[in-house]
Amino acid sequence: MPPSEAVAMKPHVSVVPLDVQWGDCDPADIVFYPNYFAWFDSGTWRLLADAGYDLAALRRIGSIGFPIVNVEAKFLAPAAAQDRIAVHSQIAAWGNASFQVLHRIRRQDGILLVEGREKRVLAQADPAQPGKLKGLPVPADMIQRLGCGE
Amino acid sequence: MPPSEAVAMKPHVSVVPLDVQWGDCDPADIVFYPNYFAWFDSGTWRLLADAGYDLAALRRIGSIGFPIVNVEAKFLAPAAAQDRIAVHSQIAAWGNASFQVLHRIRRQDGILLVEGREKRVLAQADPAQPGKLKGLPVPADMIQRLGCGE
Amino acid sequence: MPPSEAVAMKPHVSVVPLDVQWGDCDPADIVFYPNYFAWFDSGTWRLLADAGYDLAALRRIGSIGFPIVNVEAKFLAPAAAQDRIAVHSQIAAWGNASFQVLHRIRRQDGILLVEGREKRVLAQADPAQPGKLKGLPVPADMIQRLGCGE
Amino acid sequence: MPPSEAVAMKPHVSVVPLDVQWGDCDPADIVFYPNYFAWFDSGTWRLLADAGYDLAALRRIGSIGFPIVNVEAKFLAPAAAQDRIAVHSQIAAWGNASFQVLHRIRRQDGILLVEGREKRVLAQADPAQPGKLKGLPVPADMIQRLGCGE
Repeated sequence: MPPSEAVAMKPHVSVVPLDVQWGDCDPADIVFYPNYFAWFDSGTWRLLADAGYDLAALRRIGSIGFPIVNVEAKFLAPAAAQDRIAVHSQIAAWGNASFQVLHRIRRQDGILLVEGREKRVLAQADPAQPGKLKGLPVPADMIQRLGCGE
Repeated sequence: MPPSEAVAMKPHVSVVPLDVQWGDCDPADIVFYPNYFAWFDSGTWRLLADAGYDLAALRRIGSIGFPIVNVEAKFLAPAAAQDRIAVHSQIAAWGNASFQVLHRIRRQDGILLVEGREKRVLAQADPAQPGKLKGLPVPADMIQRLGCGE
Repeated sequence: MPPSEAVAMKPHVSVVPLDVQWGDCDPADIVFYPNYFAWFDSGTWRLLADAGYDLAALRRIGSIGFPIVNVEAKFLAPAAAQDRIAVHSQIAAWGNASFQVLHRIRRQDGILLVEGREKRVLAQADPAQPGKLKGLPVPADMIQRLGCGE
Repeated sequence: MPPSEAVAMKPHVSVVPLDVQWGDCDPADIVFYPNYFAWFDSGTWRLLADAGYDLAALRRIGSIGFPIVNVEAKFLAPAAAQDRIAVHSQIAAWGNASFQVLHRIRRQDGILLVEGREKRVLAQADPAQPGKLKGLPVPADMIQRLGCGE
């Protein structure tokens, strides 16, 4: 592989900083876990926006978004209200019309709280089946800008 | 007013029963208050569905929904996880393209937890201004079926 | 294995019926996926309550809840506002102080929308380390009442 | 009133910047309105933290938080995914153990989206009635640092 391609494939890591809010936490005084997936979702949108594909740009190429196919996460340490955390997101693998995102949520002191992976499909309306979706091939420049890797 | 109209205007009261979930509550062990507005919203959808206007029917008459104009609520007693509650909703007033909904959230033992009012506008896309909305006159049969009053 | 045990280990399946709300859905007109995990959480609470361990009973045995260890889910079909769905939950495996819950979310017509697994740990405050948690052995009658299996 | 007091009473305005997320929006492609109240709540926490009363400091003075008494809001313009907005919060009035917060949510271009008011009570556990709350007098330095006014 020529050096330029190797450089291109080094994954871009997007960062979404967040303050954990009181309302994100449950009576056990820690983050109610479904919120971590909302933050994964924010990380994926940030990643695509960093590559030039914000919501408006996605709509221009005919995409209605990137529905989830599967997801997994492990929870290593809890977070509490007023903790400062950040979602670090990168592409782990590209498919034809799909991609896998690796998310790591860290507390400000560097402690890894949550690690997970989402598989997404870039989707467009299916003209042959009203109300249905079909895959949209991932644009080459998105792959180039985001690279991939663990 | 003739008796038939008087009967028609007696407000229909919709009821949405709910179990308060663990994730609805915050570290003070009570419902995080924005959730009550999600339940008001459910109450308003239930009310319109009870009148024959579920989401599909609203779309058939060209409506994209009923955006909020203003809302107020008073919180009389807290609710906690696993409390059984219900949202009781009725139309308090009709406008041309708008309506006011009165919501009362009660615990199973009858205690009133929250009382509030939403003003909504029934909306459609504005063909003259792409991306903008305009009011859609409230259908006469919706008024007839739901009535209004305090 | 004697017949009585075989019967005991057949998994109890809890069911939480839900109407998908407008506010559960995103601009693609389908459920925003983190909400499915809030529904998994509701399923797990229902399961334990079915075994006699509602929140009050859990607190009586000294438990502060059952933090998540890991979770995975696959999304097979989308759900939309006003779909009637149900979360079907059962214990897939027991550990000493932990358990795995298998959740299947189905639409009223039987279509499987989401399937996933949570690993949870039954937790109590750790008297040796203020602010920390430690595992609480799963009560024998909880295992007996819920059984386990795929 | 001496000048120093006049200065002290000029209200401090806290600002919480936010990017509207995809998951904050509903099928009408605008923010689902209960989310604005979660943002009001974030604004109130920010305001108290700006006065030196973050969650840890509130707990040190025996407070379990500041439950909502009533709230009202008017919605002037919608926000959509990826809009950059900010919550501007200030104390509008002080009571003995209560306070009123005025919140204004603006889009980055200055457009006012939502304006509302929360009445909160600073609360502590009531030693005379287990499981009940009672008011906690607002600390003088909190009033001094935050001032008040419209």
